[in-house]
Amino acid sequence: MVKADCRRRLMEVGTRLFAERGLHGVSVRELSRAAGASISMISYYFGSKEGLYSSVLQEQFACFDQIGDIRQQGASPLAVLEGYLRWTIQRHRSNPYLLRFYTSELTNPTAYFATLVAPPIGNVIKILADVIEEGRQQGQFRPGINAVNAALALAGMINYFFLSTLATESLTNHSPAQDEQLVGQYAAIFTQGIIAAP
Amino acid sequence: MVKADCRRRLMEVGTRLFAERGLHGVSVRELSRAAGASISMISYYFGSKEGLYSSVLQEQFACFDQIGDIRQQGASPLAVLEGYLRWTIQRHRSNPYLLRFYTSELTNPTAYFATLVAPPIGNVIKILADVIEEGRQQGQFRPGINAVNAALALAGMINYFFLSTLATESLTNHSPAQDEQLVGQYAAIFTQGIIAAP
Repeated sequence: MVKADCRRRLMEVGTRLFAERGLHGVSVRELSRAAGASISMISYYFGSKEGLYSSVLQEQFACFDQIGDIRQQGASPLAVLEGYLRWTIQRHRSNPYLLRFYTSELTNPTAYFATLVAPPIGNVIKILADVIEEGRQQGQFRPGINAVNAALALAGMINYFFLSTLATESLTNHSPAQDEQLVGQYAAIFTQGIIAAP
Repeated sequence: MVKADCRRRLMEVGTRLFAERGLHGVSVRELSRAAGASISMISYYFGSKEGLYSSVLQEQFACFDQIGDIRQQGASPLAVLEGYLRWTIQRHRSNPYLLRFYTSELTNPTAYFATLVAPPIGNVIKILADVIEEGRQQGQFRPGINAVNAALALAGMINYFFLSTLATESLTNHSPAQDEQLVGQYAAIFTQGIIAAP
């Protein structure tokens, strides 16, 4: 096996097995066997099982950096909020394991939570809250809005839609072709609410 | 140890250990040792480790039945939706392990997901969607509202607030004393949105 392939294979196997069983539920032997690599390759590339896990976490949360670009692109606060919804859907579509690491670290944090998980999540919420606060100061959003709690509400709406899929897919009948409709629906709820105009 | 105490102790220990490590990450021996009971007591009360796990899941999700009462009490659709927010906060406050079982079963379902987890979650969303649909038909809510997706949005807002706590508590500075404020804020976002009145 070419060396770069071996590293990539260990990352792939690590992502799947850690997602299914957590850091403590997988042994070095299982990882090396599943990757078709010797145990020493884990030490060579990652130092240890923990090193592989932290590399996997970093890769999972690397996409969170893109929120900065979305903020730059969006001219108006509303465009940024809608861009955030679209981007979050794409993250879940392109990465089926993200929600597992995300929720398992939030409910059962490992030693890597504080450095690799909390900062990217906190950063996204902070940027959304800043954008909402900007809109509030410009008079576009209601004066009584708590920007951080509103940012969490927006993140919650769209993340939970994907988190709950297994329990709710028979109710929603949602397909990826309808993702853009979902962006529109959730942007409308977040900005205008569900009450009919008087 | 009195027998009823032994069963309760196994449930408590099982709840904590399964929450931390999942069904497959805990052995019968660890469970019995942590509960100060013999292995045969697990067989006696629960049949097997899997039986104990399914009893724990049933207990965790038993509170989901209360959504029916909330629907009965609330005269108006809006009162039911607000009652749902308050009830969800109380569930998380009174049960620190609920989100672990909830998210681990949704992202890594066990054999018990289909019978013990999906039905209570689906039932809550179905009732919220029915209430929203009622309000829509009465002209109280916007005609374009997709009731199921809106129900998921409401559930997502409030569940994610608690799910994300470890990563966002420094941003929110939220204490239980402010829970009623949070109910008001999230009810306002869901019904009126964040845009300022024209």
